[in-house]
Amino acid sequence: MIIIGEKINSTVKNVAEAIKNEDYNFIVSLAEKQAKAGAHYIDVNAGAFVDLEAEILKKMVQSIQSKVDTPLSIDSPRPEVISEVMKVYKGQRAIFNSVIYEQGILNKALPVIKEYNMKVVALLMEDSGIPEDPKERLEIAKRLVDRFDKEGILLEDIFLDPMVQPVSVDKRYVDIVLETIRLLRNEFENVNIICGLSNISFGLPKRRWINRAFLPIAIYFGLNSCIADPLDDVLMKLIYASETLSGQDEFCMEYITKAREGFLD
Amino acid sequence: MIIIGEKINSTVKNVAEAIKNEDYNFIVSLAEKQAKAGAHYIDVNAGAFVDLEAEILKKMVQSIQSKVDTPLSIDSPRPEVISEVMKVYKGQRAIFNSVIYEQGILNKALPVIKEYNMKVVALLMEDSGIPEDPKERLEIAKRLVDRFDKEGILLEDIFLDPMVQPVSVDKRYVDIVLETIRLLRNEFENVNIICGLSNISFGLPKRRWINRAFLPIAIYFGLNSCIADPLDDVLMKLIYASETLSGQDEFCMEYITKAREGFLD
Repeated sequence: MIIIGEKINSTVKNVAEAIKNEDYNFIVSLAEKQAKAGAHYIDVNAGAFVDLEAEILKKMVQSIQSKVDTPLSIDSPRPEVISEVMKVYKGQRAIFNSVIYEQGILNKALPVIKEYNMKVVALLMEDSGIPEDPKERLEIAKRLVDRFDKEGILLEDIFLDPMVQPVSVDKRYVDIVLETIRLLRNEFENVNIICGLSNISFGLPKRRWINRAFLPIAIYFGLNSCIADPLDDVLMKLIYASETLSGQDEFCMEYITKAREGFLD
Repeated sequence: MIIIGEKINSTVKNVAEAIKNEDYNFIVSLAEKQAKAGAHYIDVNAGAFVDLEAEILKKMVQSIQSKVDTPLSIDSPRPEVISEVMKVYKGQRAIFNSVIYEQGILNKALPVIKEYNMKVVALLMEDSGIPEDPKERLEIAKRLVDRFDKEGILLEDIFLDPMVQPVSVDKRYVDIVLETIRLLRNEFENVNIICGLSNISFGLPKRRWINRAFLPIAIYFGLNSCIADPLDDVLMKLIYASETLSGQDEFCMEYITKAREGFLD
């Protein structure tokens, strides 16, 4: 399971406050905590500050990378912003988070992805929105993977996002996204399938329990990556257990090792 | 979700000790705690004391029923033992836990089930063992349901147990039991599908996390009952969330109510 720590997000109040106050020590501490908790990537998002997005992301990246080695996921829908930020990025390969299948965007994003040897999150939606039918989402995925392949991007560097939508809006959304994950995993053995976990619980109280219950199901259907809160200790333990239940842990050795190391206490 | 509290089991050390010491207050306290935590039935098992099984179960039932109203699940493979125990049983309808499809056993069990108007857990196995193929387990289920139906037992009083086997023994066991649950739910809309949850984690350390991650997946596939530990607070919260994710909670109203009542804090 590849975990992308979600906590440095400008739409979250305390992060927005820190950005306004130029308190980058707070941002760094969030990165350190997430890295320590087991995040494989740290997401950085400054989307709430539209005009200053690139400038703030650069400051975030430079501050974090002065202290933390964990690679980053640069979270913006704007290729020109990510391009600007990557000029100051150093260290292990970053994630371009994210693109959609739209020629204008892809044509701008692909040179950036290639120039900086980035991995990429691709959303299974179109300009017109998110199709309801899982088969249509699969078709978008095929077109995206085909295009990435033509550009020389490896399957294992692609993260397809089947688009989790809130169960509170429509209970069928759970079935739709799980069926999409199943179809994707069936079609692409080596592509990463990612989701923004907390979207499932949008609009509900005590959202964590919905996120925590959803993840084992999604992992069983083929999810192998998520943008989530690595400081959620219960969630992380459920992830280890879910991998064991999903046939990704030969002879349960990883689980047994985690238990020995005290990660499951 | 129908939860049968598993804690009064003679194969567990402190329960066995209490039975040996005739400390039925301890047994009653286990029943009280489980009822308070939300168990819909309390399982009572004295199988470790073969010759004294009926006698001990009777004492358990009488002690518990002097203090607790929650109905009981009488846990024995021996119809003659359950018959004996039911002579002292009172109150809400009990569960006969369990029968298998074997003429000798069914012919002894059915009169007891009918005389005492019991519900019944039926294991999807044969004398020869547990078939590997989910379709064969479904065939056993069909034969059992057919027989119960002929005897006038209602679908909603039947609990089919697809037979959870340990992931530590063979990782395919997870897929097999989930596929069995899916087939059963597809075939029988109104029959209960139950499992002995902790069987999934047998042989592993820190078993609770495996149990907790398995249950949301099984509920998504159609499980609506389990023999489990209702004192496991994390498990109970995951159950509420899983029901919401599995389309069993119209407009998420149950989840929102549980949150308001403080059950998800």
